[in-house]
Formats: sequence, C-alpha cells, structure tokens
Amino acid sequence: MENSDMTPAQVRERARTENMVTTAGYARGYMQANLLAVPQRYAFDFLVFAQRNPKPCPVVGVLEAGQLNSELFPGGDIRTDIPAYRIYRDGVFTEEKTNVLEEWSDDMVAFLIGCSFSFETALYDNGIPLAHIEQGRNVPMFNSCLPCAPAGIFSGNMVVSMRPIPQDRIVDAVRITSRYPEVHGAPVHIGDPASIGIDDLAQPDYGDAVDIPDGTVPVFWACGVTPQAIVMNSRPDFAITHAPGKMLVTDIRDMNYQIP
Amino acid sequence: MENSDMTPAQVRERARTENMVTTAGYARGYMQANLLAVPQRYAFDFLVFAQRNPKPCPVVGVLEAGQLNSELFPGGDIRTDIPAYRIYRDGVFTEEKTNVLEEWSDDMVAFLIGCSFSFETALYDNGIPLAHIEQGRNVPMFNSCLPCAPAGIFSGNMVVSMRPIPQDRIVDAVRITSRYPEVHGAPVHIGDPASIGIDDLAQPDYGDAVDIPDGTVPVFWACGVTPQAIVMNSRPDFAITHAPGKMLVTDIRDMNYQIP
Repeated sequence: MENSDMTPAQVRERARTENMVTTAGYARGYMQANLLAVPQRYAFDFLVFAQRNPKPCPVVGVLEAGQLNSELFPGGDIRTDIPAYRIYRDGVFTEEKTNVLEEWSDDMVAFLIGCSFSFETALYDNGIPLAHIEQGRNVPMFNSCLPCAPAGIFSGNMVVSMRPIPQDRIVDAVRITSRYPEVHGAPVHIGDPASIGIDDLAQPDYGDAVDIPDGTVPVFWACGVTPQAIVMNSRPDFAITHAPGKMLVTDIRDMNYQIP
Repeated sequence: MENSDMTPAQVRERARTENMVTTAGYARGYMQANLLAVPQRYAFDFLVFAQRNPKPCPVVGVLEAGQLNSELFPGGDIRTDIPAYRIYRDGVFTEEKTNVLEEWSDDMVAFLIGCSFSFETALYDNGIPLAHIEQGRNVPMFNSCLPCAPAGIFSGNMVVSMRPIPQDRIVDAVRITSRYPEVHGAPVHIGDPASIGIDDLAQPDYGDAVDIPDGTVPVFWACGVTPQAIVMNSRPDFAITHAPGKMLVTDIRDMNYQIP
C-alpha cells in the first residue's frame, strides 16, 4: 500500500510504534494537526493567544484535562499517536520522545492546531510545484520578526514556512490558500525575506533548507510551529509539542476546511 | 444626524447614559458584538465551548481579567458602553442594569461574540427584505432542540434567530450569509420549525414576534444569545451578558468578516 493510501487510523497505528521521518504524504486528503499541550493553569492564556493569532494558531480541537482522544481521532491516544514529541521545561527544549505516557499528567490540556499540509494538496492539484516535496525534504521554517498579539503569559514572534513559488503562479497560490483560513490561509509575506527578519534562506530554524529554483519567489505562510517558538519565549514550566513535520493525522478531510 | 450615520464611539457614548431600545440600525457597517462575562474560573471552559460551537459562539475578542477595552472599542469601558446588561446568578436572570460598574470584579473575563446584525446589512443591500426591520421590531429568537457540543461545565441547546425569507430568495440568503462565517454564517435550518423544537413562531423566547409575510419561509440562523441559554442551563454562580438586541458597537467594519 502506498503511504498516501493509508487510512488516518493506520498512520496513527504506525506512529504508535515507529518514529516515522515525517507524516507528510501519508493518508492523502486528511488533515494533519500540530500539537501543543500545557498544564491546565496555562490553558486559558494559550487559548486566548490562539484566538488573537488565528493565522499561526488556528485551533481545530481542544482536549480537556483527562481527555485522550476526540472525534478528530476516535479511539486514539494523544500520548502515543504522534511519531515523536518534544518536551519543553521552562521554555527549553530538553528531549524528544516517541511517546509521552510518563510525562502526561491528568491536568494536561492539548491543543490541536491546523497545518499547512492541508493546503499543499490543493496547491499541488492546481499544478503549483512544491520544491520541498520535489526535493524530498521537510518544508523550511523560519523565526520571523512579525510579532504575535500577546495574551496572558504568552508572547513572541511568528514562525513562517517558506515555499518558492514560480513568479507567474503567485496570484494563484494566494487565491488557493486564502480558501483555507482555518489552516493558516493566505501568505503573510511575499518576496524579500530580510523585511520579515530572515537573513538566510539556506539556514532555516526548523525543517530543511531547499534549493530555490530559478524564476521563483519565496512566499511565506504562518506556521503551526509558532506555538513552539512562543513556548520558548514565554517559558511555561512545562509543555509538550509534536516534533516538526511529525503530526497527528486526523480523520477529518482537508476539504472540510476549504471555503467554497 | 441619522442613527445609521453615527460613529461607533458616538453610539457607545450614548449607550453609556441611555438605555437605548436597541442598537440595531446604529453606526451602519460596523460590527456589533454580544457579551458574555464570567469569573476567571469559568473562562477556560467557556472558551473551549466557543471553539467547539463556532456557529452560535463566534468569539471576535477576549478581554482578559482587568482589561476594560481593546482595539475593538479603543478608549471604551466594557462595564458601561452597552445600553443594558443582564446579571445571572446560579444560572438565573436576576436583574437588568444600565451599567455593571458595581458588579464587575477584577477577575471578570469578557467574551465578545459576533452578531447576525453584521450580515443583515448584506442581505438588505442585496434586496432581501427583513420582516423584523420593516415591522420595526427586534428579531425573534427561539430556544431550539439543536444541542451544542459541551465543554467543561457548559452545555445546552442552541438559540436561533428567525427571518422569514421569500421562497425565491432562500438560495441567495444562504449564499450571502455563508460568506460571514465569523458572524454566525449560513443558516442552521430552513423551513419546518417543529423539527428543530420550535412549537409556535408567534411566541419567541427572546426579541419580538413578527408577522410572517405570504410566500416566505422561516429561515433560522445560530444566534449570539446562545451563551445566555447556556448560562441558564449550566448555572455558573455568576455571569453578565448584554440585554438581547442591545449590543456593543465596535470600531471594526462588518466587511472585515466577509469572505471575498
């Protein structure tokens, strides 16, 4: 079976036992979600932060304390169904683990956040080439100087993903991705990386560098890794995230997030 | 000056000193918001409830504890800038007041929730008649039997607003309002009131009854009064809402909530 033909439940089952390189390309057409989990005492502040920053932090689901799955992944377990997790203590990334059964206390609240993988299918289906996929790499992501609106203890700058888009397809790329407002939506910037605080496209802060094809322009979208940067900046005493590129594959179709 | 030509700040100033009959028709083109304020201990549960029920509870702003205004109403005061407020104790509506300066403690968190007034302008501009406006009444609102997704202590059924729409404009009404997903969006039901638990259109639970013109069909939208029904059902020990039809008029244009 091709990876793209696997069901979401099959991908989650594999993720339970295997640290997959990435979930990109698996269970094509189904939404993949970013994870941020924090103790209850930080949960309200983060949810307000997300409400104020819907482009980088579009919340597609909340697991309350004690809740381990939802209609997004029925029968699943948030502590095991992602290929790899990152643990942050006092804002510092301390370890990467393939499950967080030991670390997950009864008062952890989990936020599932939309992912730009959802609109990549639409770009691809419309004939817009995606360099990172053609080059077999993770999408490059950068810390920008674009500030998020603060809420409670949480503040910091937006993380953006970059895709080099052919000059004559930029309008199409904006048009197509703007139809997915709940999974990051339209780009936040087109062109000059320096003007949003990115010095070197060859040195991403997360993911892999890609070769920039001739005739393309770098286009930047708000990225669901933003909560990880916000955690590092805001230093809650404990947080768990997914590892970049290794997502929760849900039973919800990407199409559900498309505006007709 | 016509009411419709007043600026949002002018309407808020009037609301500070006068219990206006309604804010409908004032400051045309600017978003009006519903209010639910609860003590901090209930705030996370309500924000999760809103995330799970975006049609009746589209949150357009959150005032954290101690915060009295925001970029939605700069220089304003959430305790005075609405014509009338309702106080709920243990889920029971106990009193209506023109300000809540005495009742507002430092730990109150305020949720501003989108309002269907925002799409009424678009309906009107597209030549769809609105019976309640033509008849000089408040829109009729009903408790439905449509359940909301519960979260924490909050659960209950959706409140819906009803507008009789000419048979040959129903498609247009759906099309137009679906472009406003953050202010209740497309209808939740068209036609038979009984099938969503409404026995008698002449006896609304909130607002005014309207005469149903010949050749029209009742169309129902999720309503921002839903949080009041949820409070009555869920019985937090204290809550403050706006009085139905008397809203917070914001500086944000309705157009900001339209999907192009």
